[in-house]
Amino acid sequence: MALIVQKYGGTSVGTVEKIENVAEKIIASRDAGHDVVVVVSAMSGETNRLIEMANQITDSPEPREYDVLVATGEQVTIALLSMALNKRGYPARSYTGPQVHILTDNSHTKARILDIDESRMRSDLDAGRVVVVAGFQGRDEQGNITTLGRGGSDTTAVALAAALKADECQIYTDVDGVYTTDPRVVPEARRLDCITFEEMLEMASLGSKVLQIRSVEFAGKYNVRLRVLSSFDEGGEGTLITFEEDEMEQPVISGIAFNRDEAKLTILGVPDEPGTAYAILGAIGEANIEIDMIIQNIAADSTTDFTFTVHRNDYDKAMVILEKTAKALGAREVSGDRAIVKISLVGVGMRSHAGVASKMFKTLAEEGINIRMISTSEIKVSVVVEEKYLELGVRALHSAFGLAETPAI
Amino acid sequence: MALIVQKYGGTSVGTVEKIENVAEKIIASRDAGHDVVVVVSAMSGETNRLIEMANQITDSPEPREYDVLVATGEQVTIALLSMALNKRGYPARSYTGPQVHILTDNSHTKARILDIDESRMRSDLDAGRVVVVAGFQGRDEQGNITTLGRGGSDTTAVALAAALKADECQIYTDVDGVYTTDPRVVPEARRLDCITFEEMLEMASLGSKVLQIRSVEFAGKYNVRLRVLSSFDEGGEGTLITFEEDEMEQPVISGIAFNRDEAKLTILGVPDEPGTAYAILGAIGEANIEIDMIIQNIAADSTTDFTFTVHRNDYDKAMVILEKTAKALGAREVSGDRAIVKISLVGVGMRSHAGVASKMFKTLAEEGINIRMISTSEIKVSVVVEEKYLELGVRALHSAFGLAETPAI
Repeated sequence: MALIVQKYGGTSVGTVEKIENVAEKIIASRDAGHDVVVVVSAMSGETNRLIEMANQITDSPEPREYDVLVATGEQVTIALLSMALNKRGYPARSYTGPQVHILTDNSHTKARILDIDESRMRSDLDAGRVVVVAGFQGRDEQGNITTLGRGGSDTTAVALAAALKADECQIYTDVDGVYTTDPRVVPEARRLDCITFEEMLEMASLGSKVLQIRSVEFAGKYNVRLRVLSSFDEGGEGTLITFEEDEMEQPVISGIAFNRDEAKLTILGVPDEPGTAYAILGAIGEANIEIDMIIQNIAADSTTDFTFTVHRNDYDKAMVILEKTAKALGAREVSGDRAIVKISLVGVGMRSHAGVASKMFKTLAEEGINIRMISTSEIKVSVVVEEKYLELGVRALHSAFGLAETPAI
Repeated sequence: MALIVQKYGGTSVGTVEKIENVAEKIIASRDAGHDVVVVVSAMSGETNRLIEMANQITDSPEPREYDVLVATGEQVTIALLSMALNKRGYPARSYTGPQVHILTDNSHTKARILDIDESRMRSDLDAGRVVVVAGFQGRDEQGNITTLGRGGSDTTAVALAAALKADECQIYTDVDGVYTTDPRVVPEARRLDCITFEEMLEMASLGSKVLQIRSVEFAGKYNVRLRVLSSFDEGGEGTLITFEEDEMEQPVISGIAFNRDEAKLTILGVPDEPGTAYAILGAIGEANIEIDMIIQNIAADSTTDFTFTVHRNDYDKAMVILEKTAKALGAREVSGDRAIVKISLVGVGMRSHAGVASKMFKTLAEEGINIRMISTSEIKVSVVVEEKYLELGVRALHSAFGLAETPAI
């Protein structure tokens, strides 16, 4: 008998009928002898309906009141799910975030969890009840309702699992696990039985949006065993997200992530002297534009070139700033490109295996794909290529690294 | 400068546009120099939408979960109204019932308020904010969400006014005050400038459904000055509900209430001995059927007759029970009539004026209306007549007692 925290997202609880299906899944876990704490999101569409009403009043609602408004979404779901469980003879009790003392800071609409008092949930579990908690929300020191921001229900689930020292935190979603890459691009993409936290972080931040990044970080920090499962499939094992230490040996590459949302900007012929990087990138950062990749080349003539990527939505704003900086620094030229994508190989195994990068470059070269930027970390290699090569590049790499086959270990 | 608690019901906040109108009304009070605490209901239709979802799952949802579900309705309204006020430059803060510690007993779906901690509202008022509170809801000792039952927002408003020692509690509704009788029956019906608590209680319980009875009782108990106003009319004064002591002299009759929802039952020829009344009415009460009027006549032959009225919906059930009792007691006969109405004259002034009842009976007799039952209290006289005479009777009485004219005092 284990203690399991299960999280069901908005699509999984999108209608009353789907809520009843979720009740059946929970009951299967209860019947298997497990204690279950459930975290649910608002029914899909509900949060948008609420935001639309707010926007009829104002484009910029007070964050405090926005949180009061949208927090009702999850509250509806917890009540309906508890009714569905009780009807089936499985006693259940619903709690809002504030009711189980999910204490957060006071950053409305993007609050961070500081503490959870698990005593009330524990006594319900001891009494044989399923505990149903509203995701995405909490309260600050003053008792104001706060929300964790979109996707925050994952974080709630992991935080509850940590507070309750649960044996496993199961995130039910509309995919049945983490794949070697997006199956819509590579039909042979294979579901991973397990993936390390570090890899998951890289996969998520690189655009494989299965889990909210913050929840994965949280799970890593508090050593929570995390599993991604499908709420629609029966009996799938999903993907277990593990700590590297748990595993005997890792495959070199676990998956291929890609991101279509970036654009690159280049400034050529700036003085190669201290302070130049700050002059260029500081101005971008001050405008609250996040920079992803940064590359600097030194030219022969004591000048240097910078290339960096930003979110495609920030491209125009970043270009205006960069042109100003270029004038101030006497740069030779400024250029940019929206039509790029980033492709990344991710795998903790590459730490101990040389040659991953060179095999990646060779594979792309054989397909005639020109690499525009390269960036590497301990467990990933990322390249920027022209957007039109995305599918071709990902498929070639997926095949070259043998990702469709189950690893030998 | 006064402290005013204003309550706006579901129709008054039925759309985002109406919520913005309510914001304007609140601003008018602020601009007049008043501190304002606002209590709102769920947007009309919202509570039914939520209940419908619950009923898709079960006909008998757990009361605890039902409360969690429907409490979201008011929470949506407080957030939207606060946004509308803030947008107009009038700082406002929303609170759910639990957030301002509206402590209730744990009778889910019909909880009673035990205590309110007004400190948080007070500090918002001191800081120049409008305080917007969700009506109809609170929390029990354990922190469970409770609701006060339909119409409970009136009670919330009165309870807050009592806790804050507010100068006035204003109930905004879709009528502009309390009338001498229903204007749909008597077009000359006149809006009362004031009415006593006792009269209001009689008017409300007799079917003039302007205010929830419990809220009026509460206001009487805690000496809250209560005013009924229209949320759609501009600048009306509404009807002030006062303590009798406040007034110099009272008109004899304040208004005429009527009730179409009753039915009468009669049992004839039962033994005239101790325990008979209990044998008849006890059985009805045990079936949770409320009895309104009761009349007993003593016949010559040491038997007696009982007539009583119940809600028309309970008529069939009550008749089945009464027939059983009749057999057990050896009664001569049982009869009943659904097609009756109760008409009541209400007025604290009748205490000191004889002849109200006889003038009432004379007026009805002149119209050829036969009286079937009579019941009197300190401040009212009620008669039961055939349903078809309702309009005729009410109009004749309204005219005979001069209710269309403003009283001389």
